[in-house]
Amino acid sequence: MPKDTTVSKTTHTTEIFERRESEARSYSRGMPAMFATASGSHLHDESGNTWIDFLAGCSSLNYGHNDPDMKAALVDHITSDGITHGLDLHTNTKADFLTAMEEHILAPRGMDHRVMFTGPTGANAVEAAMKIARKVTGRTNVIAFTNGFHGVTNGALAATGNGYHRGGAGMSLHGVTRMPFDGFFDGIDSADYLDQMLSDASGGIDAPAAIMLETIQGEGGLNAARAEWVKKIEGIAKKHGALLIIDDIQAGCGRSGTFFSFEEMGVTPDIVTLAKSISGFGLPLAMVLVKPEYDVFGPAEHNGTFRGNTHAFVTARIAIEKFWADNSFQSELADKARLIEERLTELASLVPEARLKGRGLMRGVDVGSGELAGKICAEAYKNGLVIETSGSDDQVVKVLAPLTTSVETFNEGFDILIAAARKVLGSTTNIAAE
Amino acid sequence: MPKDTTVSKTTHTTEIFERRESEARSYSRGMPAMFATASGSHLHDESGNTWIDFLAGCSSLNYGHNDPDMKAALVDHITSDGITHGLDLHTNTKADFLTAMEEHILAPRGMDHRVMFTGPTGANAVEAAMKIARKVTGRTNVIAFTNGFHGVTNGALAATGNGYHRGGAGMSLHGVTRMPFDGFFDGIDSADYLDQMLSDASGGIDAPAAIMLETIQGEGGLNAARAEWVKKIEGIAKKHGALLIIDDIQAGCGRSGTFFSFEEMGVTPDIVTLAKSISGFGLPLAMVLVKPEYDVFGPAEHNGTFRGNTHAFVTARIAIEKFWADNSFQSELADKARLIEERLTELASLVPEARLKGRGLMRGVDVGSGELAGKICAEAYKNGLVIETSGSDDQVVKVLAPLTTSVETFNEGFDILIAAARKVLGSTTNIAAE
Amino acid sequence: MPKDTTVSKTTHTTEIFERRESEARSYSRGMPAMFATASGSHLHDESGNTWIDFLAGCSSLNYGHNDPDMKAALVDHITSDGITHGLDLHTNTKADFLTAMEEHILAPRGMDHRVMFTGPTGANAVEAAMKIARKVTGRTNVIAFTNGFHGVTNGALAATGNGYHRGGAGMSLHGVTRMPFDGFFDGIDSADYLDQMLSDASGGIDAPAAIMLETIQGEGGLNAARAEWVKKIEGIAKKHGALLIIDDIQAGCGRSGTFFSFEEMGVTPDIVTLAKSISGFGLPLAMVLVKPEYDVFGPAEHNGTFRGNTHAFVTARIAIEKFWADNSFQSELADKARLIEERLTELASLVPEARLKGRGLMRGVDVGSGELAGKICAEAYKNGLVIETSGSDDQVVKVLAPLTTSVETFNEGFDILIAAARKVLGSTTNIAAE
Amino acid sequence: MPKDTTVSKTTHTTEIFERRESEARSYSRGMPAMFATASGSHLHDESGNTWIDFLAGCSSLNYGHNDPDMKAALVDHITSDGITHGLDLHTNTKADFLTAMEEHILAPRGMDHRVMFTGPTGANAVEAAMKIARKVTGRTNVIAFTNGFHGVTNGALAATGNGYHRGGAGMSLHGVTRMPFDGFFDGIDSADYLDQMLSDASGGIDAPAAIMLETIQGEGGLNAARAEWVKKIEGIAKKHGALLIIDDIQAGCGRSGTFFSFEEMGVTPDIVTLAKSISGFGLPLAMVLVKPEYDVFGPAEHNGTFRGNTHAFVTARIAIEKFWADNSFQSELADKARLIEERLTELASLVPEARLKGRGLMRGVDVGSGELAGKICAEAYKNGLVIETSGSDDQVVKVLAPLTTSVETFNEGFDILIAAARKVLGSTTNIAAE
Repeated sequence: MPKDTTVSKTTHTTEIFERRESEARSYSRGMPAMFATASGSHLHDESGNTWIDFLAGCSSLNYGHNDPDMKAALVDHITSDGITHGLDLHTNTKADFLTAMEEHILAPRGMDHRVMFTGPTGANAVEAAMKIARKVTGRTNVIAFTNGFHGVTNGALAATGNGYHRGGAGMSLHGVTRMPFDGFFDGIDSADYLDQMLSDASGGIDAPAAIMLETIQGEGGLNAARAEWVKKIEGIAKKHGALLIIDDIQAGCGRSGTFFSFEEMGVTPDIVTLAKSISGFGLPLAMVLVKPEYDVFGPAEHNGTFRGNTHAFVTARIAIEKFWADNSFQSELADKARLIEERLTELASLVPEARLKGRGLMRGVDVGSGELAGKICAEAYKNGLVIETSGSDDQVVKVLAPLTTSVETFNEGFDILIAAARKVLGSTTNIAAE
Repeated sequence: MPKDTTVSKTTHTTEIFERRESEARSYSRGMPAMFATASGSHLHDESGNTWIDFLAGCSSLNYGHNDPDMKAALVDHITSDGITHGLDLHTNTKADFLTAMEEHILAPRGMDHRVMFTGPTGANAVEAAMKIARKVTGRTNVIAFTNGFHGVTNGALAATGNGYHRGGAGMSLHGVTRMPFDGFFDGIDSADYLDQMLSDASGGIDAPAAIMLETIQGEGGLNAARAEWVKKIEGIAKKHGALLIIDDIQAGCGRSGTFFSFEEMGVTPDIVTLAKSISGFGLPLAMVLVKPEYDVFGPAEHNGTFRGNTHAFVTARIAIEKFWADNSFQSELADKARLIEERLTELASLVPEARLKGRGLMRGVDVGSGELAGKICAEAYKNGLVIETSGSDDQVVKVLAPLTTSVETFNEGFDILIAAARKVLGSTTNIAAE
Repeated sequence: MPKDTTVSKTTHTTEIFERRESEARSYSRGMPAMFATASGSHLHDESGNTWIDFLAGCSSLNYGHNDPDMKAALVDHITSDGITHGLDLHTNTKADFLTAMEEHILAPRGMDHRVMFTGPTGANAVEAAMKIARKVTGRTNVIAFTNGFHGVTNGALAATGNGYHRGGAGMSLHGVTRMPFDGFFDGIDSADYLDQMLSDASGGIDAPAAIMLETIQGEGGLNAARAEWVKKIEGIAKKHGALLIIDDIQAGCGRSGTFFSFEEMGVTPDIVTLAKSISGFGLPLAMVLVKPEYDVFGPAEHNGTFRGNTHAFVTARIAIEKFWADNSFQSELADKARLIEERLTELASLVPEARLKGRGLMRGVDVGSGELAGKICAEAYKNGLVIETSGSDDQVVKVLAPLTTSVETFNEGFDILIAAARKVLGSTTNIAAE
Repeated sequence: MPKDTTVSKTTHTTEIFERRESEARSYSRGMPAMFATASGSHLHDESGNTWIDFLAGCSSLNYGHNDPDMKAALVDHITSDGITHGLDLHTNTKADFLTAMEEHILAPRGMDHRVMFTGPTGANAVEAAMKIARKVTGRTNVIAFTNGFHGVTNGALAATGNGYHRGGAGMSLHGVTRMPFDGFFDGIDSADYLDQMLSDASGGIDAPAAIMLETIQGEGGLNAARAEWVKKIEGIAKKHGALLIIDDIQAGCGRSGTFFSFEEMGVTPDIVTLAKSISGFGLPLAMVLVKPEYDVFGPAEHNGTFRGNTHAFVTARIAIEKFWADNSFQSELADKARLIEERLTELASLVPEARLKGRGLMRGVDVGSGELAGKICAEAYKNGLVIETSGSDDQVVKVLAPLTTSVETFNEGFDILIAAARKVLGSTTNIAAE
């Protein structure tokens, strides 16, 4: 009955999007190509143009597009009528994923956390994490930080700092107190400030259910917290009876250079949220890791039709087994992180007062203004590089390439980026000089 | 590197779930089989046992498990390196889906709504819908109804009636006023009551941004609103300057007997939420349909990494083209609805004061107590039927079979169900008689 | 140093009010006289004009203006340097008041309630009452009713139904669920409706900390609840673990015909709020009566500089001893209530479909529109009667005369009122007839 | 009919308080005398004992107890049947007060503010001020500071920092963001910090309706903001479109050494709240001064039965005319402020690391612990001095004597206080030495 079950080969126009898709669409505005296929670190459009991908689905594609091993396993699963949608019933696929997660991720890191599958979006995992902390403590207040980004559903949005996104709520959001992230205000250790606010009996901050943070703020401008600061926050949480939630949705799954972004900090969060790259393949999947003593939800107390996603379990298992069963992938990441730093230093040297941001493979350059950063990325796109900005004024050129990107492709992408910056700065200079 | 990329053939135990999965898991408690494969209306476990599926992923599998046409298209898409994760970039796959949605669903029904892809969960679509209504009107208050279920993220949870789920928030939820659903309180038309509450200048209900409802309350006990009531609510919304949101996540995609549950009511909602079966295949996908004049979000104002899900676009297009391009499927549904009614009447006749609930292919029997309904479903499960309860006391035996279930399989399932009821009631009677 | 410590005898103009008083001023707009003195049921302006007072400071002057016994006691207290402002220190004056309150009010009615002095406004007493209920139960939600009026500070305003006042908050108000008052919606017993909403596990109403009501809604249009309804509400509160708060600020202190408005209903509220006439003399004083088991505030946990008001204690004691030490005053009230009913029936007979409202000495006539009621009151004012409207559309001509008003003065006032109505209706008729 | 209208001469016991007054009573616990009369700076109990008053009704008695001129005017007003309770009708008494307020207070300071009479408590004035700012700006968020105290009704309590008072709400409070007061956190100018939090587009602080502060935090420990800081805050408010509210309830009416606490800072608040000493006599009265362009409440939109208090208008007018018509009183205050500083320096010298706090005649000594401060005050009370502590740990011995206290009485009071400190410290030392 269907016209044709294969991918359409005709060339599409963007009319249908203009006519029928909501104005909420965003990336397609600056990068209007009609994308069709992708593999590894490359995206291709219908007309055969190719882009190197330095965006990686906002860190949802840490292992690149359509990894061949995951692809094969998924096709095999589908072909053999493996479960697609199983609510939260037991499936062999989920069992295999959990086993891999335990064996290669949790156990080696000494984490006895339970895995809770929420609706397959990061926001949903954050919502569940905040609810757990409130249920455990009987308190409402969650401490979140300047420039934090945790999603746009109302519970998570209360914790998100970005004013544009907050404005979308159309109402006041409750239950969160904002505190300065590490380095937000010069001359203070903002962890000490938080401690004093919480310790003063008339400080006016309600006793917290949780302190929630990203160790590297992806959307907020690639602000990387110092390990000492995170460790101090862990102590403050304990002191004030709050749970420590680390939102590792963007910085986790290897992006920081290790599986979890916090694992070399000597910190053990009470709750960790994961999404984006956890499926390995870009499929929707999200989860909450929670210490057993805080695993307080009753059956389906937090539920959702798509909690767990069986296709994603297939690829997620492969991702773990392929990349995290031994230390080799993590070693490569260290090398690539050095390469990224080197090339971004080169970029930064072009812009007066530019600053390197981020950590590991989640890096960028603050070029001082959103206008400049935007122009550089637009120019790069024209020349075959998909790359985006970040930060409260979009002032950071952000590199979130697949972790599996080869050295060659990395350099090719950086060459495009640096040339784009030169061109934009040149024309800027010319304009300024006239 | 990965051990084996094929589906494991070994027999699994449930130990890994007990050790590592959160206590929030639910369906697996009453139906502890290790499910492995599924097709059409049948589920199979690792040991080769088979169940008829009268749950259908809570209405996420309206076209059954692993529909062969969708399966083929999806495998083809994956095999040919079609985009898996594309943020909200243009893809040929999304263009094709939108075109099918316009051609076969929206245009024929005279709907000029725009399609907004939210994070792929129903809750996320509901959150976006509520945010839009608040942004459009500049008001906060959303009217929701007794026994409504709209999800468990904080914004949506405020609109959900179920006390167990609400309790999971660990905090007071804001921005929603609860009103009685059609038929909730004997002797009144609850639409008139709502109108009077809103019309009285000292009624104490803040002017509403939206009135949000399910025409058939799935989780709330299969309460079906009368068309006149929904129509009256539409008028009340207009009169009071509120948007009408119909949450068609569970009742949509054919479940009611037509594509939208409201399309024969003469009602045009300002906003419609869709999820569950919209992908056709059980893959995570959710969307908001919004009248162009209310499509007020700016780019990415409401965003999410997995907004849109390219794999789901593939299958969703097939589902629309296969089932909704002409009238034949809808005709079949009418026949099956009659069959369901007939067999449930048979079930109801076994239980004193039992009542048929629901509408179309979203039907059930209120057997008077959650304990009895639970026993019947448990007995049915033992005999090869997956079926669940619903309602504020779980007092409704609920039939949510794939719409594609054959008459033969329907009857087979009902035979199991009715036998289970007889057995449970027999033993109950015996116990009572002793 | 001060110019002159006596009351100025010069004739004032209203210029200073127009220049310096906030636009929030209200009664002076419709009744612009420059009032100077008052005694009993009469008000006098600077120019020697006299009005009969059927407003009585919105029931704050139940014993009339400047009662001679209270006046004498207060002057004596001031002259002898009695404490004016004593925070919540022990004073002989407060001891005497409490003793009178116990002896003549609480003990005879079998009430073991404790007396909490809050800031001297009704709103403050309501805020304290709601806080107590929340602290006792650990719940947030307070059930309040359509057309209820409990004050305009944010906590109390959340419970107030009037949309104009609610709008003044400039923000959403939290912690209150609105339910229909007795008689609000034809054809139902709204207590049964409340019970069903609270009893349904998916009713979506959070478990209540308190149910708060006025037995006669003063500002809301003189809606008098039936005794059976109040009694039923008391049972519902108990059943659902909520405290029963009766806000007797306007209906208390004899206004209903007995000291408390509920005392003949067989109801014992957990908390009662009193203000308005409790000082007897129109001085600011407010209090919360709370059952000992719910007297949970720690020292100064709810405080306020003017909690207790020593001058008011002087007059409040006299009021109790003079009017409530024996049954004679209450007997008089019954006679006067009959007189009021008779004369208001006369008024109502002039207006088609007019309805008598209220109970005891808190009565009025719903004349069908705020415009008509306003014209009648304005005409009465011109002829020497101070009287106001009430209700969500100001559609009720409200009589709140001092309870001490003589039969002669009552009749004089009613004669003015009825003549005013005749005149307004005559001209209305004429206009309509033309 | 009343037993006896004069003040009872019998000696009372405290039994009635224990039996019938709420546990919320506070000052009477540490100072259990049965106070009966008071004049100037002295309090007397029923048994004839006398105390010097260094508490002054928490700054409600800036002109002492029962000032003879106010007393005479009030007795005259009452005796001649002046209006006691007049709602917000025009009265000659109110006209006279407003005229004095304009002539001697507002006009000389170049303030064109309107006067809004709220319910006669400071909390009510604060509630009105916050509501105005929200209505003017259409924003919800009010910035308040650590250790601020603004009252305990829910709207005001949201802005109050004290955790004990906040806990009394029994619910989360909304609409306020807490920021560090001047000097709260070492090493930063907290105004700069506030500016940065508001300026960062992802700072996560909603655009503010108002910034509200006390220039000297009375309950918060006598923290005096620097003039430069307050001035900077005024600029930040303007920059971010927020109103500046100065809560001068405790620091106003001369307490700081000038009528308003901010008048020598070059700051013009958009809104000022006044209560406590504004009546001059300790009678309940509160008001909001609001710039005409922000006087946005409609008639009675914020109302209250006791708004305005005619007796208080009588004494408030005298207070203004007697103390503020020329510069002499303010000159005296400067001398007394020096005396207080000198004697508190003497006190501070007794305690290692003690610090002087406050400004003007609102001074204290932080003795390092609430326990020590409490002991000193208790010992002082035994020896004839009423004095209290303040601060988040009650660690500040606070002097809030009537501004009219003579030098002799001041010294007498300080002698008692210093002797008390010596005794307590001596015994402490002895205990420590043993």
